[in-house]
Amino acid sequence: MSEIKNDLFLRACKRLPVERTPVWIMRQAGRYLPEYRAVRDKADFITMCHTPELAAEVTIQPVDIIGVDAAIIFSDILVIPEAMGMKFDMIESRGPVFHHPLRNEDDAKLLKQIDPGKDLKFVLDAVSLAKKELNGRVPLIGFGGSPWTLFTYMIEGKGSKNFSYVKKLIFNNPSLAHKVLEMLSDAVADYLSAKIEAGANAIQIFDTWGGILAQDDFEEFSLWYISKVISKIKRNDEPIIVFSKGVHFKLEELAASGADVIGLDWTMDLCEVRKKIGGKVALQGNLDPTVLYANKEKIKEETKKVLRSFGEGPGHIFNLGHGIFPDVDPENAKALVEFVKEESKVFHRKDNIGDDYV
Amino acid sequence: MSEIKNDLFLRACKRLPVERTPVWIMRQAGRYLPEYRAVRDKADFITMCHTPELAAEVTIQPVDIIGVDAAIIFSDILVIPEAMGMKFDMIESRGPVFHHPLRNEDDAKLLKQIDPGKDLKFVLDAVSLAKKELNGRVPLIGFGGSPWTLFTYMIEGKGSKNFSYVKKLIFNNPSLAHKVLEMLSDAVADYLSAKIEAGANAIQIFDTWGGILAQDDFEEFSLWYISKVISKIKRNDEPIIVFSKGVHFKLEELAASGADVIGLDWTMDLCEVRKKIGGKVALQGNLDPTVLYANKEKIKEETKKVLRSFGEGPGHIFNLGHGIFPDVDPENAKALVEFVKEESKVFHRKDNIGDDYV
Repeated sequence: MSEIKNDLFLRACKRLPVERTPVWIMRQAGRYLPEYRAVRDKADFITMCHTPELAAEVTIQPVDIIGVDAAIIFSDILVIPEAMGMKFDMIESRGPVFHHPLRNEDDAKLLKQIDPGKDLKFVLDAVSLAKKELNGRVPLIGFGGSPWTLFTYMIEGKGSKNFSYVKKLIFNNPSLAHKVLEMLSDAVADYLSAKIEAGANAIQIFDTWGGILAQDDFEEFSLWYISKVISKIKRNDEPIIVFSKGVHFKLEELAASGADVIGLDWTMDLCEVRKKIGGKVALQGNLDPTVLYANKEKIKEETKKVLRSFGEGPGHIFNLGHGIFPDVDPENAKALVEFVKEESKVFHRKDNIGDDYV
Repeated sequence: MSEIKNDLFLRACKRLPVERTPVWIMRQAGRYLPEYRAVRDKADFITMCHTPELAAEVTIQPVDIIGVDAAIIFSDILVIPEAMGMKFDMIESRGPVFHHPLRNEDDAKLLKQIDPGKDLKFVLDAVSLAKKELNGRVPLIGFGGSPWTLFTYMIEGKGSKNFSYVKKLIFNNPSLAHKVLEMLSDAVADYLSAKIEAGANAIQIFDTWGGILAQDDFEEFSLWYISKVISKIKRNDEPIIVFSKGVHFKLEELAASGADVIGLDWTMDLCEVRKKIGGKVALQGNLDPTVLYANKEKIKEETKKVLRSFGEGPGHIFNLGHGIFPDVDPENAKALVEFVKEESKVFHRKDNIGDDYV
C-alpha cells in the first residue's frame, strides 16, 4: 500500500487504524459537477465509457474538486452485457435501454463469452491512465455489477418498477437463469481481475437489484453468485466492497461472502449492523443522498450522526447510502467531504494505540 | 363480531384462535380481474371512486370470484388530498398526477379542512352499500394513506424515483412539513372514523413511502403521525393494520403505535419478525407478489413457505407483500387463496385448546 500517499481508504477497508474516517461518494464522477458536464457536452455517455482519455479525466475530477479519499473509475456496469453482444442506449433521465432484452433460451444462446483484455480493453486503458494521472494521490476503485443486477437489466431491458420479466424467468425457468448467471459470474470475475491487473486498488460490486428479491431468492440468485465472483477474482490484498441496495437481511451471509467491506443504504442503522458483522467486515455508508439538498448546517449535523452511529475505531468508510443526485450543488458535496474529514478525527483518537474496538 | 359469518380475519387480527389462516390480497379489486375491467370500461378510475354503486360492485368481486376472507373497499388514498382541494388525474400505467403539487407555504394555505361526511360522502356511501351487499359474508376493510404517504404524493405531484421535492422540503422547511402532516393526521383520522361508522370492520393504513426515509426521519415524519391517527380514530374493537412498505427497521416502534396488525413486505422474514413483535401484534403478509407469475406448483410451495415461516398458532393474516399486479392470471390468485385455506389448517390444530404460542 506504500505506493499510495493517502491510503486511509485502503486501511479502513482492512479495519486498520486510521487518523480520520476516509470518504468517497458513489457516482462522484457525475452530472452534479459542471466540470463533468463540460466533458459530457462533447461526448455521449457511452462514448465517454469507451474513450479512456475522457473516462480517466472525469475519474480524477472529484479528487481535485471535492477532495475525496478515493477515485472510482468512470464506467458503467453494463459494459459487460454490451461486450457479450447486448447493445444498449443510455437515455437521459430514463437510464439504460437494451435494444433486444434477453427473454428466452434462444436469446441466451447469442451471448458470447468475453475476453476483458480484448473486449473491454477501453476500461482497462482508462484504469491505467487514471492510475497514472492520479500518481498515487489516492487509491483507484474499479467496479462491476453483481451477476444478478446485470441479469436483471438484461432481462427487463430497462429500468423497471415491478421487475415482472426477471421474476417470471426465475420462477418459471430457473435453470436458464442459473445458466446465464453462471456465465455472468465468470465474465464479472475475469473483468474485475483484469481491472486489478490494470491498477485498480480496490473493487466495488454493485448489487443494485438484490433488494427486490425475497430472502431465499436473494441467496439463490444473487448472493451465491457474488460469493462466486469474489472467490474467482485474482487479487493480492485489494479489498472488495459489496453494496447490495435494500438488502437489510442476510447481513451475516454477506459478511461471509469473502467481501472485505459491506456497503449500506441509508435505511440501515450503522451501529446495529456493526454489532452484527463489524467484527468480520468494514462498513461503508450511509448518509441519505438527499441530505445534500439541505443547508450546510443540516449536512454537518447528519454527517456527525452517521459518524456517531458507527462510533469509535477503524472499519468505517464514509459514503452516501446511494449515488449522488445530478441536481446536488457541488459546494454541498465539498462541504460534506470537509465535514467528514474534520468531524471524524475524534472517533479515531485511540486507533493507533492498539485497542480492539469491535 | 357475531354479525359476520366468516370472521377468521377479525379473529386473526386480534390473535384469537382460528381454524385456518385467513387470506386477502392487497389491490384484490383490480385490473387483473376481467370483471373489474368490465366495470372500468364504463368509467374511469376516479369516476369509479366517486360512484358508490361502482365502487361497491368491484369491492365485492374478489369475495365472489377469488374467495378471499375479507373485502376491502374500492377507493384511493388520494381522495383526501383531492377533498382538501388538490385535484389529480389517474394516468394508466403512470399513476396519479396532481395538477398543482404542493411546494411552499402559499400552496399549503390553499388546503382546506375536510368534513368526511360531506366531502367524502361518496366513499362512506360505498362502504354502506358494499356492507349491505356483503350481507355479513366476510368483514369489510376500510383504508387510508398514512399522513406521510399522502404528503409525499402531494409534494412530488406524481410517482418519483428520488423523492427530491419532499426530501428538500423536510430538510429545509421542516415546520411547514409538520404543519401539513398535522392537518393530514386530523383529516385521515376523521375519515377513517367515518368509515368505521359507515360499517367498516377493520382499517388498513398504507404507509407506502415510509421506507424512503432514514430511520430517524421515519420516526419524525411518518411513525409519529401514524400513531397520532390511530389514537384519534373513533372505534369499538375494529382492528387497525399498518402496512409500511420497506420499513424493515423500527418494528418495535410500529408495534407500539397502537396498531393491532403490522403488514410486512416480501423482503421480511415472518419468523424473525414474529419473535420480535409477535407477542404484541398480529402479522400480515408477505408472499412476493411476483410469485403469482409462476406455475401453481411453485405458488403452492411458496405459500407453504410463508405459512411455515410464521409457524403455528394464531396472529397471521396471509397476504401478498405488496399489491397484486394487473397482469396476473386470476386463476393463480384463486389457486393461492385455495392453497392458503387448505395448507394452513395444520398450523392451527392446537388453536382451540388454549395454548400460548408466542
